[in-house]
Amino acid sequence: MSEPSTINQKNRPFVRFTGHPTPHYHKEETGLLNSVDCVIFGFYGTELHLLLHRFPYEPLVGHWALLGGFVHPEESIDDAARKTVVKLTGLQDVYMEQVYTFGDVYRVPTDRVITTCYYALIEVEPTLNQLSHEYGATWQPISKVLQLELVYDHFTMFEKALEQLRRKVRYQPIGFELLPEKFTMLELRNLYESILGRPLDKRNFSKKILNMNLLVKLKEKQKGTSRRGAYFFQFDEKRYQELVSKGFLFEI
Amino acid sequence: MSEPSTINQKNRPFVRFTGHPTPHYHKEETGLLNSVDCVIFGFYGTELHLLLHRFPYEPLVGHWALLGGFVHPEESIDDAARKTVVKLTGLQDVYMEQVYTFGDVYRVPTDRVITTCYYALIEVEPTLNQLSHEYGATWQPISKVLQLELVYDHFTMFEKALEQLRRKVRYQPIGFELLPEKFTMLELRNLYESILGRPLDKRNFSKKILNMNLLVKLKEKQKGTSRRGAYFFQFDEKRYQELVSKGFLFEI
Repeated sequence: MSEPSTINQKNRPFVRFTGHPTPHYHKEETGLLNSVDCVIFGFYGTELHLLLHRFPYEPLVGHWALLGGFVHPEESIDDAARKTVVKLTGLQDVYMEQVYTFGDVYRVPTDRVITTCYYALIEVEPTLNQLSHEYGATWQPISKVLQLELVYDHFTMFEKALEQLRRKVRYQPIGFELLPEKFTMLELRNLYESILGRPLDKRNFSKKILNMNLLVKLKEKQKGTSRRGAYFFQFDEKRYQELVSKGFLFEI
Repeated sequence: MSEPSTINQKNRPFVRFTGHPTPHYHKEETGLLNSVDCVIFGFYGTELHLLLHRFPYEPLVGHWALLGGFVHPEESIDDAARKTVVKLTGLQDVYMEQVYTFGDVYRVPTDRVITTCYYALIEVEPTLNQLSHEYGATWQPISKVLQLELVYDHFTMFEKALEQLRRKVRYQPIGFELLPEKFTMLELRNLYESILGRPLDKRNFSKKILNMNLLVKLKEKQKGTSRRGAYFFQFDEKRYQELVSKGFLFEI
């Protein structure tokens, strides 16, 4: 099959469902490459982290990049994004959201690639020993990521995803996706401080979150971090859904 | 050139920039069709309106649809969306925002088409006599649109765009994009009520918006609508930018 020689060459074939009784209207249109890129957030220690890998393609071999993949004809873009996260972390059923689609003509210098960016919120701990070696993926703290150069427009994707996460985390309890099932009040506050990028008043934060009646205080304490130990809490998803159905609005 | 016969057929060619010194990595990937669909909002009388047209393709000929177009290799997706709005309304420099990308495999029953939805905010009046007859476009009030069936997933796009507009309009002064240069306080309140879908307290609304010092009260009055006439206002874009640079947050 001959290859297109310039960007203006038209009439590339594309995917068509044969056997459909209705005629096809788009015979003259050109197929474009579509990809997904995933901004994978995790929380570890006291800081939000981002999963990055070293880009394997010339001339940017070894530069930091988001993980992504092409969208194939038989999969939705959501499925393509989910597949990228599973491939990399081994984790299924991860919380994901679409962020934005980047469609500038020369965003990738070698080919016309339209990419849709997603963010994913995952628990770091289960991935620490099983991150795919094949892709050389590692967790990098956000404070360090802000100093890095990423390939192509990946830094813009990261910024846009972080902005969307910051907005959303205040009005939906998605922050709990980043924590283990049991967490202390300090861990929860550290998480919010790291996402929002600013300190939060200790007393006000606890009061606000406990007043929502969404946390279950466990009898168990965290050991080793302080002399008295801190109580663990759990997020009550069922209670949250009940409250939402009555018009409750989560707000931090 | 032979045509692909099933959705799973691979190795469709796609757009490649020749002459670039770096090698191409994506030779095995398949090109997909990309389109844009525009949710074009306008404000008229006391209600938000949507620009719709009658779909020209079988088997959905004559059904209501959003206006869209394919993304061509030599244009960005933003440019493709802008082109759709210009083609339809004749208006340049319209306020637009990307909403979401819909990428389910069978969203269009005849072909694999990934579409990115945008909304546009335009002044209805200049378009009333120049809407393209070729596309049969007409302004439909939102209250009516909510009762319509649109083709494919166009209704979902409309809902998603309206949701984004509702969120955004409260924190950025984009509502003024929908009004003529001079407007009365009643027109401004009608606009917000129609977008947000709920009544607003007359006195509180005026107070809130006037306290922000973003409106210039003109000496001129609107005639014919009330005995005394209502003063016209203008939005002061320069003043808004000054305030924003000092940390001001618009909020309705």
